[in-house]
Amino acid sequence: MKILVFNAGSSSVKFGIFDTRIDDPRVVKAEFEHFLDGYCDLHFQLGGEQGETLHHRVKVTDVEHAIENIPNLLEQWGYDDFDAIGHRVVHGGTLLTAAVRIDNKTLSLIEDATPLAPLHNPANLSGIYISQEIWPDKPQVAVFDTSFHKTIPEEAYSYAIPKSWRQLGVRRYGFHGTSHHYVALRVADALQTPLSDLRIISCHLGNGASVCAINHGVSVDTSMGMTPLEGLVMGTRSGDVDPGLFSFLSRHSGMSIEEIERQLYHNSGLKALGGSSDLRNIEQQAAEGSSDAQLAINVYAYRVRKYLGAYSAVMGGVDVVVFTGGIGENSATMRQRICDQLHFLGLSLDVNKNSSLQLSAFDSQLINHEISRIKVIVTRTSEQWMIAKEVQQHLESARLQENKDNCVIPVAVSARHVHLSRHAVELLFGKGYQLNVLRTLRQPGSWAALETVELIGPRGIISNVRILGPEREQTQIEVSRTDTFTLGIEAPVRASGKLDNTPPIRLRGPCGELVTRGMIVAARHIHMHSDDALAWGLNDGDLVDVELGEGERRTLFANTKVRVNGNFLTEMHIDTDEANAAGITFSTKGHLVNKQSDSIVTIVNKKQQTLK
Amino acid sequence: MKILVFNAGSSSVKFGIFDTRIDDPRVVKAEFEHFLDGYCDLHFQLGGEQGETLHHRVKVTDVEHAIENIPNLLEQWGYDDFDAIGHRVVHGGTLLTAAVRIDNKTLSLIEDATPLAPLHNPANLSGIYISQEIWPDKPQVAVFDTSFHKTIPEEAYSYAIPKSWRQLGVRRYGFHGTSHHYVALRVADALQTPLSDLRIISCHLGNGASVCAINHGVSVDTSMGMTPLEGLVMGTRSGDVDPGLFSFLSRHSGMSIEEIERQLYHNSGLKALGGSSDLRNIEQQAAEGSSDAQLAINVYAYRVRKYLGAYSAVMGGVDVVVFTGGIGENSATMRQRICDQLHFLGLSLDVNKNSSLQLSAFDSQLINHEISRIKVIVTRTSEQWMIAKEVQQHLESARLQENKDNCVIPVAVSARHVHLSRHAVELLFGKGYQLNVLRTLRQPGSWAALETVELIGPRGIISNVRILGPEREQTQIEVSRTDTFTLGIEAPVRASGKLDNTPPIRLRGPCGELVTRGMIVAARHIHMHSDDALAWGLNDGDLVDVELGEGERRTLFANTKVRVNGNFLTEMHIDTDEANAAGITFSTKGHLVNKQSDSIVTIVNKKQQTLK
Repeated sequence: MKILVFNAGSSSVKFGIFDTRIDDPRVVKAEFEHFLDGYCDLHFQLGGEQGETLHHRVKVTDVEHAIENIPNLLEQWGYDDFDAIGHRVVHGGTLLTAAVRIDNKTLSLIEDATPLAPLHNPANLSGIYISQEIWPDKPQVAVFDTSFHKTIPEEAYSYAIPKSWRQLGVRRYGFHGTSHHYVALRVADALQTPLSDLRIISCHLGNGASVCAINHGVSVDTSMGMTPLEGLVMGTRSGDVDPGLFSFLSRHSGMSIEEIERQLYHNSGLKALGGSSDLRNIEQQAAEGSSDAQLAINVYAYRVRKYLGAYSAVMGGVDVVVFTGGIGENSATMRQRICDQLHFLGLSLDVNKNSSLQLSAFDSQLINHEISRIKVIVTRTSEQWMIAKEVQQHLESARLQENKDNCVIPVAVSARHVHLSRHAVELLFGKGYQLNVLRTLRQPGSWAALETVELIGPRGIISNVRILGPEREQTQIEVSRTDTFTLGIEAPVRASGKLDNTPPIRLRGPCGELVTRGMIVAARHIHMHSDDALAWGLNDGDLVDVELGEGERRTLFANTKVRVNGNFLTEMHIDTDEANAAGITFSTKGHLVNKQSDSIVTIVNKKQQTLK
Repeated sequence: MKILVFNAGSSSVKFGIFDTRIDDPRVVKAEFEHFLDGYCDLHFQLGGEQGETLHHRVKVTDVEHAIENIPNLLEQWGYDDFDAIGHRVVHGGTLLTAAVRIDNKTLSLIEDATPLAPLHNPANLSGIYISQEIWPDKPQVAVFDTSFHKTIPEEAYSYAIPKSWRQLGVRRYGFHGTSHHYVALRVADALQTPLSDLRIISCHLGNGASVCAINHGVSVDTSMGMTPLEGLVMGTRSGDVDPGLFSFLSRHSGMSIEEIERQLYHNSGLKALGGSSDLRNIEQQAAEGSSDAQLAINVYAYRVRKYLGAYSAVMGGVDVVVFTGGIGENSATMRQRICDQLHFLGLSLDVNKNSSLQLSAFDSQLINHEISRIKVIVTRTSEQWMIAKEVQQHLESARLQENKDNCVIPVAVSARHVHLSRHAVELLFGKGYQLNVLRTLRQPGSWAALETVELIGPRGIISNVRILGPEREQTQIEVSRTDTFTLGIEAPVRASGKLDNTPPIRLRGPCGELVTRGMIVAARHIHMHSDDALAWGLNDGDLVDVELGEGERRTLFANTKVRVNGNFLTEMHIDTDEANAAGITFSTKGHLVNKQSDSIVTIVNKKQQTLK
């Protein structure tokens, strides 16, 4: 599929034609900028990465005029044959959390999100309006900088501020989403490892800069917040500051909010510390002894390093650190400064590989030492290509949705329960004890035992917790999020069997106690028979969004993992909190219940796990 | 020494008599609060921790009136015999960075710092003025919440904001300094390990809350910033927020800076998220299923955990995590939530010890599992006792300073140089090669070699770097901070021989190259003969402040470590950057030079490294 990708700003327009089927997919890339006295610069590159970049000064007055010229240019260049148009939109607000076909409703939602990105969204919208006039018959899709971050959990996106402010939409959104998503896919590709098996920290260090914690394929935290001002030191933006700054400057110098914010956006960051927003100048001056430039470099690296530590703590460790963006791709000394002192994490750079790195397009290179437990990768980002890919996926999944009657699957609600090892059975029930079958369950071979145990946490006790058989290699305790608060122990959301670094919990049986790791909140998932997977075009490990419930309780369960096996009976497994959220009733409380739900279960958005 | 300690706020006054010579040093502790209709509450406890706490409603109209009543109360209680008075002052600004005798100059400097703490400093000052009238003959000393953090390096205290704002004093100061310092001393005491050998993260989780990274005894970063608003979620304060919040709320709701800040101070934090500023209420509601309360707990723990990760990265690892303050001392479930997922750092709680903890006064308890590499300690903080201790130390060191003519010591300036291992000598100069003595140095047994090497970094090369003999077990490269920028490699400031986690550097000699760890910026230190140490009352490992240079270049080198040995010649070692800063000249560049400086070297402030 060939996609025309637009990135319309207030003072420049970037566009390109991308072919999502081929390896070097960028066949045209062009930019209008520096509008002055009726003329502007036009840079363009034809024929992908091999093509030469040409620079012309052309008679084009402004952004609108530039866009109007694009059909002629594409025709001249022989690239006027494309299937759809993708528009980069910076802020999708709380409601636009995935690529979306542009219609009147979409446009009004983008307008609604404009107060959150007053500098960016109006320019993006203006680009959309003009291109609707020029190409009224092409499908047009909006892709949001914020949407990759929709998976950030509430504890990470919530500021500790009054509820009335949070209800206005004040929360962490995060930006650079298409870039972070793209480089995560590149990492999985370079390591030949599924994204769902990796904990990645992505450092997008360009003129704007942000760090993103990508846990098993989904964004769980990022350094930019409600606006692109929070987080790292950037070219001209401050990143994190004390919120008391505003009242101090107001009292001391009578400055207004607008003036302070203008300074934080345009005269802060590297420019304020080191006298230039370009790190190359600063590195030169630092080597010549400028203490301002040295400070700028130190503050920049220090801030990134703190986020690397923080996001390691968020994910319980990290497997890959990836650098991208102008600074991330090109400054070997900055990468080394950031990574210094991180040996305690298991990160060790190969200084030769780092300093001699030559990066070409669509290339990922490892710069960690071979003994380093953490892989360190440098790769070139390509937000426009990623936008093209998201447009393609959106249009394909929309087609899939037209056949949604085929995708109804039953739902099973799992109450809290435990799986025990032989060792645990003997500690709790006595040596040689065998569990008794109360009744068989719907998944072939599994059953509920007659026996129960007590869960004992620092805050409270939960009694009569059902044991499920047969015995397993590892003891595993599956509870709901509410249960974790009753117990006073935080358990991670995990797939069954992924028990590393789970918190300890005390179990009590009639003959004894044991303290064991293995408590999780079971990640929702779909058991799928391989025949069904084939019919619906899904593979083991795919993530899908599922709609569940009716009316007011209609709920979208995003990023549900599909597990495919020839022995599975096809059904979705959710826990009691999720069932309550979606208003699904079940008759027997406190036991594992299998119920053929009459809810419509629809696969609405298949996430691709591979890059190509 | 008996000290009357004052903590005068705008709506309460705390005071106590502390005896710094005894183990349970708090002999009186009292507080006036809840002023209403001409009366207030007076709580007091006599006879240390064993004494009963009594509560009276007394006829006292306001804070000023309360302070005027104190002489009578102390006389009634039989505690009117004390040696000096210590005042807690929240903000010392950039100039007041240690405990200081109160005189007119000090008072005017505290006034100058008031814009940085407009809510706190005026109340502290008012308490000082009244107590000067009441006790005109007692020495009065101010102790600052900010002063423990004076060692935070520039890259950590600098916000990336315009220079003109930084020149107004906008920077990270940090608060809770006396508490963080106190618990660090407790930790060293509990582990029977010198503070200078520990990397500690101190979590002061009270109604106000902050985290502090204490690297080898000194604060290197802390979560509160220019004001006590930045950082962690607190009882009613927001902690970190996106700086774009102000303009969003101003545009959307017409709110002023003052109104937004008032909400961030008084209606945010746990109160905004969970409906109460008291964690005990929130934990109760969370267990009953309140999702707001669950969110409040999760956001609180999540934020602390991120700082634990970040400060681990700052110090290249962590040895001890210590909890104190109301929440830190009392909420086992919060401690467990914070520590969950940190196994990758080597931190593992003992859930039994954590949940069954009973803390008494002046007690520290370990709650880590015995296999945990990181120690986790809970201890009760005592800011007032620490203030008493700082008052005593200030008065003692002032007496020491009266004899400052005894303390003149020579200064040696070390240019960049390397110490090589046998292995390194053979790789660089050939198998069996022996270095040649160019000339002997002042420290007995050490000499400069005829040979030099080249240092090669990703950014640049430094040639003709002198080798010092004799050979050592480990290769060590000592450079100045400016050199690290020439090379493009960040090296830590370290004592000689402490080379763990130092960055790799390439050395080139006439016969070959090697890449080795071991590059440091040598921490300034004083070699001291044991006779001199005895005469000046110093011990091995003590930290002293040293004044160097004259006139405009007069410079205070804080936290200089004293190394005592019967073989040392007494002299202070600094590097070229430090010599330049203090305007010390030396004739031969590029080699190690020993020069008897004619500067006055004065030990101005001896830091105690032990608790009692």
